[in-house]
Amino acid sequence: MGSFDGLSAFPPTPADAAGRLQEKLLAALIGRIAATQADSIGLLGSTGGYAYLSRAERQRAVRVAVECLGGKRPLFVGVGALRTDEAQALAADAREAGADGLLLAPMSYTPLMEEEVFQHMVAVAEAGSLPLCIYNNPGTTKFTFSEDLIVRLSKVPNIVAVKMPLPPDGDFAGELARLRARLPEGFAIGYSGDWGAADALLAGCDAWYSVVAGLLPEPALRLARAARAQDEAEVRRIDARFQPLWTLFREFGSFRVMYALADILGLFSLAPPRPILPLPGEARGRVEAALQAL
Amino acid sequence: MGSFDGLSAFPPTPADAAGRLQEKLLAALIGRIAATQADSIGLLGSTGGYAYLSRAERQRAVRVAVECLGGKRPLFVGVGALRTDEAQALAADAREAGADGLLLAPMSYTPLMEEEVFQHMVAVAEAGSLPLCIYNNPGTTKFTFSEDLIVRLSKVPNIVAVKMPLPPDGDFAGELARLRARLPEGFAIGYSGDWGAADALLAGCDAWYSVVAGLLPEPALRLARAARAQDEAEVRRIDARFQPLWTLFREFGSFRVMYALADILGLFSLAPPRPILPLPGEARGRVEAALQAL
Repeated sequence: MGSFDGLSAFPPTPADAAGRLQEKLLAALIGRIAATQADSIGLLGSTGGYAYLSRAERQRAVRVAVECLGGKRPLFVGVGALRTDEAQALAADAREAGADGLLLAPMSYTPLMEEEVFQHMVAVAEAGSLPLCIYNNPGTTKFTFSEDLIVRLSKVPNIVAVKMPLPPDGDFAGELARLRARLPEGFAIGYSGDWGAADALLAGCDAWYSVVAGLLPEPALRLARAARAQDEAEVRRIDARFQPLWTLFREFGSFRVMYALADILGLFSLAPPRPILPLPGEARGRVEAALQAL
Repeated sequence: MGSFDGLSAFPPTPADAAGRLQEKLLAALIGRIAATQADSIGLLGSTGGYAYLSRAERQRAVRVAVECLGGKRPLFVGVGALRTDEAQALAADAREAGADGLLLAPMSYTPLMEEEVFQHMVAVAEAGSLPLCIYNNPGTTKFTFSEDLIVRLSKVPNIVAVKMPLPPDGDFAGELARLRARLPEGFAIGYSGDWGAADALLAGCDAWYSVVAGLLPEPALRLARAARAQDEAEVRRIDARFQPLWTLFREFGSFRVMYALADILGLFSLAPPRPILPLPGEARGRVEAALQAL
């Protein structure tokens, strides 16, 4: 079960100030997504704050999500860590807890070289023994995958998909054509960066790795479906309603905005992990207004 | 005891493939530095791979270094972590184990905002209750301190020094004059980036946070002393001998080169923490040649 196609919803991971998972709150978020037709769930992604949670809490989060989903939706789990052996252990944990696939971002402290990222990903893909998506997220990992490296990794057992950042020049069609010409048949190419999703989907990408769908799966699904139906007018109409939220995502970082959104929606009232601070009060009012636009 | 002035030597932290500290090897490195007139030791800095070690191993490393030094040299300890509460715990650990001061880099995953870094550093400085040096290392943390933020932090209790990256325009004198005009009397300004040390020292900075001094304290000390004596010709002569090594530091990252250097010097033969890979064989030959130039 589980292909890296369609709308993948990335929920935050509710945790207290000491980083302890709030199981019931997470289960409620997962249940909310599972009640829609979202194609998959991306647990412990950047939005899920995996970098701020211990191995034990990450294990618990996977168990809670698996139990809550009961196999109704594929569950993909972020297993990034600064050390290769830790990422391997997290990958094995996720498989044992019942995950359907893995997301692997090359977290870095010492800036990484291409060969290091290659060997790291090979080692984790082997340890995980699950379909794995390359999590190409330069904004957080500070590592940018070259197209050559993605092509090289696409030949590695278990590596079946890539999550791309928005291309700086906005040329999704060109990037997709270049990559597809070099990647194996069926290798899935998706995008993150919600404000670019409309263009990415209309250009024919395979997946939208969506932050906003973690808390607002319904309007995100409407956008994804209109794009699948090639109804560009409808895509633009829905995307326009999202604009105030996209502006906030870009200005404050989607991670921070999602905590305010969860509070406003009555889903959970928790601060993000320090050092990350809650949005200032003024911005919170703008999140409320952005929500009303939807 | 302990001011952030002069030559601070940053040793690697010998650990096995599973990240377990090799106590005797660390003690030998510390003893080697303490046998010179180096002004302080920077344990668990970026060169010490703190980001790749568990809290327990970091605690052990401080204990080993304190015991080995017996108060003969000030010991500064890196206490950076992605979470504020973890960095606070590491700071308390370091103080309890007998450290003389702290180095704090704002490690990041979600890119941090200025106010977040400010509050993070205030919280850790308070928890540590030791003199603390702002570890401004954008190459690894991906956060660049503005001069305004450094000035704001200089007013916080316990924060007494800053370790700066090399200025992109190379204008050390200009940067030092600007900062000193705004910082409290006695606030120490030092630089890291060994290939810029000669210029930084000649421009009158207070400290050289030196990677190479972690394994080769003697030639680094000669450079630092010639600079203190304002003997520019001698500084240039010593710096010229270091050039082949500086070239390797810039090309491969000093972290990787130090592991090859330790092996060549017979100090320890361990791989860096994966995903970081040892230098390729060809580069190792160049490290040997660079060492002979010294």
